[in-house]
Order: sequence, then structure tokens, then C-alpha cells
Amino acid sequence: MAEITFEIVEHIGVLYEYPNGWKKELNLVSWNENEPKYDIRDWNPEHERMRKGITLTLEELKALKEILKEIEL
Amino acid sequence: MAEITFEIVEHIGVLYEYPNGWKKELNLVSWNENEPKYDIRDWNPEHERMRKGITLTLEELKALKEILKEIEL
Repeated sequence: MAEITFEIVEHIGVLYEYPNGWKKELNLVSWNENEPKYDIRDWNPEHERMRKGITLTLEELKALKEILKEIEL
Repeated sequence: MAEITFEIVEHIGVLYEYPNGWKKELNLVSWNENEPKYDIRDWNPEHERMRKGITLTLEELKALKEILKEIEL
């Protein structure tokens, strides 16, 4: 059976908290002992269960930061 | 057969361009004719094919913007 290992290297911030306690978070996560990547994903309070999300490289996150700096929200 | 419809309401920015022409983009996308949501996802050049990604509400994107403003990348 395949197994995914992960380690949350750094908790960076919370984008949203659901009524059930899950949170959409930006973290720095190492998946399968690979180099950590930035990661936007829903987690349960214990950070034992997650939903699908995306990983971003440092360059992608920097680009996103620049884009968000330029737009009116 | 189930069908997903989508309309890219606004192209906001490009986070990364792959050598094959696909791009990781931030867009405002209406899925299945629902209210548009912010969306980070890979697209082919014609925006006819996409890979999995995440959708974010306006509030979540605002929170992400604030988080990114505060951190050093």
C-alpha cells in the first residue's frame, strides 16, 4: 500500500476557519520527505487530516504576492 | 454523463509558465454557472484544458494577501 508522509515545517497563516474547526491554511510542507513547498489546503484542528489543495514553489508564491499587491480586492 | 462548465470571467495573473506552454494562473472563474470564485490552477495555452487546483472566496484571497504582505519571501 502506498503511503504519503508529510511534515508541516512552518505554519504561515490561516485563510479561513470553517464552523467545524477545519482551517484553510498556508503552510510550508514537506511531502514524502522532499524539499518543503508552500501549500494551501484545508486541515483539521490536529493537522492529522487534510483535503486536496495545491503546492506552490517559492517563485510561484512570490509571483502571487506581486499579483495580489497590484489588484484591488 | 456529468459535465462541468466553466467560464473564465477575468484573467488576473500568471504565477508560472511551464516549458510546454501551460501556465499556473490566478483567475476569476465561474464553475457550473455558479458565482465566480478566485481560482489558482494550471491551464493549457488555449484555456481548454486544466489541471486540479483550488478555488478561493474573496475573503480567503484577501486573507492570503494580508498574510503574504506580512512575510518575507
